[in-house]
Amino acid sequence: MISQSEIRIDTSGRGTYDVSREVREAVRDSGIGTGLCHVFVCHTSASLMLCENADPSVMCDMESFMSRQVPDGDPMFTHTAEGPDDMAAHVRSVLTGSDLNIPVRDGQCALGTWQGVYLWEHRRAPHSRRIIVTVQGESS
Amino acid sequence: MISQSEIRIDTSGRGTYDVSREVREAVRDSGIGTGLCHVFVCHTSASLMLCENADPSVMCDMESFMSRQVPDGDPMFTHTAEGPDDMAAHVRSVLTGSDLNIPVRDGQCALGTWQGVYLWEHRRAPHSRRIIVTVQGESS
Amino acid sequence: MISQSEIRIDTSGRGTYDVSREVREAVRDSGIGTGLCHVFVCHTSASLMLCENADPSVMCDMESFMSRQVPDGDPMFTHTAEGPDDMAAHVRSVLTGSDLNIPVRDGQCALGTWQGVYLWEHRRAPHSRRIIVTVQGESS
Repeated sequence: MISQSEIRIDTSGRGTYDVSREVREAVRDSGIGTGLCHVFVCHTSASLMLCENADPSVMCDMESFMSRQVPDGDPMFTHTAEGPDDMAAHVRSVLTGSDLNIPVRDGQCALGTWQGVYLWEHRRAPHSRRIIVTVQGESS
Repeated sequence: MISQSEIRIDTSGRGTYDVSREVREAVRDSGIGTGLCHVFVCHTSASLMLCENADPSVMCDMESFMSRQVPDGDPMFTHTAEGPDDMAAHVRSVLTGSDLNIPVRDGQCALGTWQGVYLWEHRRAPHSRRIIVTVQGESS
Repeated sequence: MISQSEIRIDTSGRGTYDVSREVREAVRDSGIGTGLCHVFVCHTSASLMLCENADPSVMCDMESFMSRQVPDGDPMFTHTAEGPDDMAAHVRSVLTGSDLNIPVRDGQCALGTWQGVYLWEHRRAPHSRRIIVTVQGESS
């Protein structure tokens, strides 16, 4: 049994966006009881991550870390057609990844207590991002 | 056909723990011949990786690299409620990832000769970690 | 429904190799209409990534970034049996990952416009790399 749907997130620029609710809804709507929920972002300058969802300072620190690790406008970068955050966004996306699989159990995402699903927008300008959710498994 | 089980690993603190045997057993017990085995850690301060399983110095070097890259007690971090390794553990987890998918072929994990499955505990204190294994595919 | 096949890529040493065509063909040959395509590299010194496929300078910059981040011959590394790029290759592989899942929709890989699938060879010498592709879902 399989169910596929699409989420669209309009970002206001660089930062993290909690999409846990949307992903949980896609699982509930699928009618699947046991299986896997796959989340995929169709872009190369935004990524997905599972991260601590209780204290907002975690997201600030995550952003600070990444900004130091992969600085915008690094003189090493030659791919700068779309500005100083262009290549940095591609590197950040590769380091964090474009897809996630989450177990489905008893018809729900079996996330740990503190695990949230985040879209990470790496470009400074607002973007409209497409996420494809595929739920596969046995009906509940 | 689908099979879901749980592994619990009691860690003695920061370091890598080879869970290849447990994952291989879950695949064998599933009775699935061709498909995928998904491994998922339900925490945000421990992660999973596939890595070289022959020489223990690889794990030491991996730890040294990560400790330099994401130092505990980095003055940049503001999320420090649980101590100097709290935020570092979240960053390390995001960089290495919470889930893996391994092909199943002829009823076994189709890992390469040198690929082992490791749980990476990023907190300094011992923790009890839950891993969900989901095997999906056709019976052998 | 499930289909599993193998791709072999003979690399000429460190660098990225576009395998999008091979992955797309495996999906088309599977006869699956809706589902997921899993790509897995059976090695610990080569990895997989989704990245921008239009401007070749992106791959150059990605390589420059990684070479600075994880330098060959880092004096910190003790696992040096196979030379100065040995341990660096393992770290680079862990940071970028060994497997990817791509949604299948209407019988095709639902990649974004600019997303390409790349094998990243991290060793300096040529290697023969095995990639297992598993497509799972409903027939079209």
